[in-house]
Amino acid sequence: MDQPIGVIDSGVGGLTVASELLRQLPKEQLIYLGDTLRCPYGPRPKEEVVQFTWEMVNFLLQKNIKMLVVACNTATAFTLEQLRLELDIPVIGVIQPGARAAIKMSQNMRIGVIGTEGTINSKAYPNALKNINSKILVNDLACPRLVPMVEEGILSGPEAYKVVNETLQPLKEQNHIDTLILGCTHYPLIREIIQEVIGEHVNVISSGEETAREVSTIMGYNKKLYSGDRIPKHQFFTTGRLDVFKRIASQWLDQPFKVVENAVIGINKTN
Amino acid sequence: MDQPIGVIDSGVGGLTVASELLRQLPKEQLIYLGDTLRCPYGPRPKEEVVQFTWEMVNFLLQKNIKMLVVACNTATAFTLEQLRLELDIPVIGVIQPGARAAIKMSQNMRIGVIGTEGTINSKAYPNALKNINSKILVNDLACPRLVPMVEEGILSGPEAYKVVNETLQPLKEQNHIDTLILGCTHYPLIREIIQEVIGEHVNVISSGEETAREVSTIMGYNKKLYSGDRIPKHQFFTTGRLDVFKRIASQWLDQPFKVVENAVIGINKTN
Repeated sequence: MDQPIGVIDSGVGGLTVASELLRQLPKEQLIYLGDTLRCPYGPRPKEEVVQFTWEMVNFLLQKNIKMLVVACNTATAFTLEQLRLELDIPVIGVIQPGARAAIKMSQNMRIGVIGTEGTINSKAYPNALKNINSKILVNDLACPRLVPMVEEGILSGPEAYKVVNETLQPLKEQNHIDTLILGCTHYPLIREIIQEVIGEHVNVISSGEETAREVSTIMGYNKKLYSGDRIPKHQFFTTGRLDVFKRIASQWLDQPFKVVENAVIGINKTN
Repeated sequence: MDQPIGVIDSGVGGLTVASELLRQLPKEQLIYLGDTLRCPYGPRPKEEVVQFTWEMVNFLLQKNIKMLVVACNTATAFTLEQLRLELDIPVIGVIQPGARAAIKMSQNMRIGVIGTEGTINSKAYPNALKNINSKILVNDLACPRLVPMVEEGILSGPEAYKVVNETLQPLKEQNHIDTLILGCTHYPLIREIIQEVIGEHVNVISSGEETAREVSTIMGYNKKLYSGDRIPKHQFFTTGRLDVFKRIASQWLDQPFKVVENAVIGINKTN
């Protein structure tokens, strides 16, 4: 099974998922496509997210991927079921893995979720959690200030702390959760601040780590992991500006390798 | 998908897996069969383990299970591939989940494994780890004193600490691992002592928790989790003495419910 694993995201957030895939499955090859030009997806109507996601999927299908990872919470919430029905390769999103990991970690079954407004409004996390255990209490909170801050590169220091601290106050005041799901792929980059603000007693769950773990599970179970020896080659594509994407990717991917091989604009840029 | 999940083990160790399944998937119904009469499987020749395992599997197949969990490291090492080939329901063992969780947790990719002599000699864990990442350094250690101690009910106190401390010395002297897999389903019962002895800086991975997580992943992915409302009924069977099994199960399963409904000896007791 020497084909690559495909990863799609609305922009750069999915690089935290890609980074974990590279770390946990170092023999696998990745093809990543970030729709940086049309990012963010969060505020867009569902129909548009569905259309854009399919454009990305069709681009990767031409690359002969063996599996698709939807590394974007909004795209997962709106398209996962449809993609699974229509594609004949395994498709994994970022919501279920985070939900399952939270259930594993939580002792009191009071679970917090933070994400963009789109993700929180979709109720995808509460639905995923309660489908498995209807007694779980979910405290979810939209955090619209965090993605812009991360994209500006403010990942530490007093300003970042101040924004995170103000944002998470409603969760802190309830003060009962023992587990917090980072329901947005940007948030792992400020995980340490989030942990500090929410308290050391709270398990902080990164969708990226957990999604990579489930890719390993599903692909291992289906005997589709690469088992030979090779030096894997990864390809990263962006629909937007190559220099910007390269700069961010080189900051976000914490292992050294050629970050962007090229940037083919293979999808229809209608917006 | 209202059928039960089947769990087999050579005896009582798999109850730690069952306990986690009940916690992480509270809507599911379990049927557990422990071959207490012929326990332990560890020192037995492979052919015998294969034969006994198939007898257990056939007993559970008559109960119309939708999935099989092999909650015994020895049985997993010797029969998992064969069971997967021959059964038309999903089959999950305890080795791959522990290996994948360790890879997720480890930062330095130096991973320790402790287990019975049978499991350690089978090299099932190093193989599973290195199949995914050939650069992982594995320190494995057979711990023949731990299962008898746990089965005697010595789960805490100075004697337990002394035995664990002496047993784990070879791992402590190497002092490089940042993650330790509990490669035997008995060990979660002495997890706190193991953590104390090996040090707080080491991630201790319980096969039980991780196997339950992967059951959730595989069954969720295949849309085979129960999603309705019901009060689940579990059945626990033993091939050995019902009173002994009941006593241990009531100690090990930390949530209150009827531990053993009945004990039908449905398999051929040749030994």
